[in-house]
Amino acid sequence: MYDIIIIGAGPAGVSAGIYAVSRGQKTLILEQNEVGGLIRNVSNVTHYASVKKGESGQFFADALNEQAKDCGIEIRKETVTSVDLISEPKQIYTDHGVYQSRTVILANGTSPRKLNLPGEEKLSGKGLYMNAARDAATYRGKNVYVVGGADGAVKEALYLAQYAAHVTIIHFEETLGCISEFKEKVEKTPNISLHLHARLHGVSGTNQVDAFELIDEKTGSIETIHDSGCGIFVYAGTIPNTKLYTQLKLEDGFIPVNEKMETELPGVYAAGDIRVKQVRQISTAVADGTIAAINAAAR
Amino acid sequence: MYDIIIIGAGPAGVSAGIYAVSRGQKTLILEQNEVGGLIRNVSNVTHYASVKKGESGQFFADALNEQAKDCGIEIRKETVTSVDLISEPKQIYTDHGVYQSRTVILANGTSPRKLNLPGEEKLSGKGLYMNAARDAATYRGKNVYVVGGADGAVKEALYLAQYAAHVTIIHFEETLGCISEFKEKVEKTPNISLHLHARLHGVSGTNQVDAFELIDEKTGSIETIHDSGCGIFVYAGTIPNTKLYTQLKLEDGFIPVNEKMETELPGVYAAGDIRVKQVRQISTAVADGTIAAINAAAR
Repeated sequence: MYDIIIIGAGPAGVSAGIYAVSRGQKTLILEQNEVGGLIRNVSNVTHYASVKKGESGQFFADALNEQAKDCGIEIRKETVTSVDLISEPKQIYTDHGVYQSRTVILANGTSPRKLNLPGEEKLSGKGLYMNAARDAATYRGKNVYVVGGADGAVKEALYLAQYAAHVTIIHFEETLGCISEFKEKVEKTPNISLHLHARLHGVSGTNQVDAFELIDEKTGSIETIHDSGCGIFVYAGTIPNTKLYTQLKLEDGFIPVNEKMETELPGVYAAGDIRVKQVRQISTAVADGTIAAINAAAR
Repeated sequence: MYDIIIIGAGPAGVSAGIYAVSRGQKTLILEQNEVGGLIRNVSNVTHYASVKKGESGQFFADALNEQAKDCGIEIRKETVTSVDLISEPKQIYTDHGVYQSRTVILANGTSPRKLNLPGEEKLSGKGLYMNAARDAATYRGKNVYVVGGADGAVKEALYLAQYAAHVTIIHFEETLGCISEFKEKVEKTPNISLHLHARLHGVSGTNQVDAFELIDEKTGSIETIHDSGCGIFVYAGTIPNTKLYTQLKLEDGFIPVNEKMETELPGVYAAGDIRVKQVRQISTAVADGTIAAINAAAR
């Protein structure tokens, strides 16, 4: 029996865990992958106050992991398979067993969105990737394409440009949708070019990408690009990991909360990217975790 | 003419500056002291996600300063003397001149509260202190008293106990008002004791504290403690630095905002400890700065 069970060990979940333990709460974090969440796959952690210049997502995630262990949070690497958020105590079922808790903090964020295109599944990991931080070095001196024009995509394009011969950003809109800092860096990076108002339409090849199709957003015409052995890195947004939370009313898949991070269900909190919010940054995820844990502990 | 002027370079102000610059905003931070704000005086930064174990406030503040400079924020060490937050553009007057800006983020936090007691002014810096991180070493092997029982006070009492012969926490309530982590640490620290339901009533001495008076909250009786050369560290809460903001309606001296950190005045935002909020932590200050700057940039 726990005071607080936290689902997800990203920045929101770890921050919640740190505060929960400091308030004397018997706390368990359930995480199906590694501590850090999506941040572990980011090439550089940027803009978070106090982060070092050029600090990698891996480094940041390791720091979170160390801090979590130092303060004595119990973390189990298990996959949550179902939840009862209404019962008292709450019931959390995993692939290893069942846990009971007075309160629950849902902090299991979002997952990268797949494109559901011809060739995507077959070539995943064989030319088609979602983690530049891990796979960039494989494409040293080769051509790389980044699908997406938001902050996350352009940041990784800039990172890939340090390795690749050439990086092409494929984005469906007329201009990049990222912050001006990244736009300026792209302009100053000679081996990055843009292919705008275009969407990836399909990928072909056997053990590598041989060619891919782009569809023009304006004309609808389809162009085939032949570039054997190129790498395609997809950053097509994220989707909230809320499939299990059928007891909660969701908004576009995200969890609505009040300023205390309380959901509509008593004793159930949500923190970080998984909740309805205006600004999705590490800083706001960390603050959400802080607020959720302090309120869960006081309940 | 600036896009965003930020008043205060604590965690909220620096976070706002980092985000403002990343959005291509011409940004100025005005800070009357050093970058870091109150956090610079804290012995250990605790609970902020990714902070290293035992990291001092000084170290953390220096990291903020370096990060701010790296990303090109203009910071001026000037004291704001008056503001016009209604005019367009906003006018910010300092001891060095006047600045104009499209938007303003008020992030100048709080200041330690003084007790206004007999002897306080005279012995300030001569036995009476508000910064254990700086002055603890002076009291190696001597007796120290900490006034206050909230998180900030007890954290510094634990730090002082590493230097002092003995630390007495003087707190007006029946129990400490701090988190259980700190309560447990106090219990495990043999050279800390508690003097509860008592308030500091006055301090006497010439170039050092010779004696001080405590008033018992229950009986009203006054006790004089003679302890020549002791150190008294006062952590009696904080007050918001909102004296100049007469154009804003305040709540108990703090600035009300909505979830975008907007005040009631168009183009004026507030972030961090200075605003009305439930949870005052570094993490929530940093998130406030993030949100305020993103919204100010988009205005």
